[in-house]
Amino acid sequence: MQALKDRIILEGTVLPGEVLKVDNFLNHQIDVAFLDEMGRAFLELFPDCHRATKVLTVEASGIAIAMPVARLLSVPLVFAKKAKSSNIDDSYYVSNVRSYTYDKHYQIILSKKYMTHTDHVLIIDDFLARGEALSGLIDLVNQAGASLIGAGVAIEKGFQPGGRKLREKGYDVRALATIAAFENGSVRFSEE
Amino acid sequence: MQALKDRIILEGTVLPGEVLKVDNFLNHQIDVAFLDEMGRAFLELFPDCHRATKVLTVEASGIAIAMPVARLLSVPLVFAKKAKSSNIDDSYYVSNVRSYTYDKHYQIILSKKYMTHTDHVLIIDDFLARGEALSGLIDLVNQAGASLIGAGVAIEKGFQPGGRKLREKGYDVRALATIAAFENGSVRFSEE
Repeated sequence: MQALKDRIILEGTVLPGEVLKVDNFLNHQIDVAFLDEMGRAFLELFPDCHRATKVLTVEASGIAIAMPVARLLSVPLVFAKKAKSSNIDDSYYVSNVRSYTYDKHYQIILSKKYMTHTDHVLIIDDFLARGEALSGLIDLVNQAGASLIGAGVAIEKGFQPGGRKLREKGYDVRALATIAAFENGSVRFSEE
Repeated sequence: MQALKDRIILEGTVLPGEVLKVDNFLNHQIDVAFLDEMGRAFLELFPDCHRATKVLTVEASGIAIAMPVARLLSVPLVFAKKAKSSNIDDSYYVSNVRSYTYDKHYQIILSKKYMTHTDHVLIIDDFLARGEALSGLIDLVNQAGASLIGAGVAIEKGFQPGGRKLREKGYDVRALATIAAFENGSVRFSEE
């Protein structure tokens, strides 16, 4: 999505540790009209998306980018929650996620009420790097016995292994913008 | 908002500790079309809202309910973040919030880039009970020197002191649905 690449170039900040901050329109301040555009671009990425019965993401910043997609598809958005307590009962699907950013593990949970084997699920999230969060979401879909249409992310760090690993497992993972490398504090995108 | 009261009656669950769960459409699974309706209802609650230059909420579930309001007003949505690390530099406004649910304090932060003294701010959040989160958001607006139009919440627990305290301080706080009491596991609403 060229408009997204343009905004990343113009407004993104590359921080030490290969962190890209896009706080100006996606992760802290949200440009709602632009996220609607991104929603339409996700629909073009996944020709099968109109079979979806649910859009799935994970709190917090995933909610903003997934909501326009759910609106365009006229289906509910479900967001997995980061578990805050250890007493999670068996009414939830639970998956373990490793966070490299904060160097710890956490659990994401999804109520069994909101996903079943009859669902067709499109996963939407903001970033894909090592793929830990996305793997957790796919795990939740599989636990539910639901059918996964695919997983769309706004920005993929193509130089990290998450996307490749998931595609090798057969999942349809697509990105609106794929970063090939950070070079001297600026961003080089992969060819389409 | 009658449609919201109807859904709370029909789909809400009252748990011990006067907790109302509305996971079916607001806090876990999100009914996007219904949240758009709620967005329009917020606009009716605040005749002055068209002066807004920013909508402010706090992650995570506030994002879903605040986004339609920002869309309708054609202004950016900014969400305060729950601080994850102790090394917050002076590029952020910081406010301390007490969470009764989890019996601890946490900090919410807002980049100074995304709110200044020229902004007119409408705060939107999902729940108002003791008012701790809303007080924190108001504190951030005040630190920025911005002008606060008001604060709209989807559901207020009118039997808890948060709303009254904030109104006594002169803030324009309004709710789409105000709960007067929980009685034998069911919900009684305040008169309009």
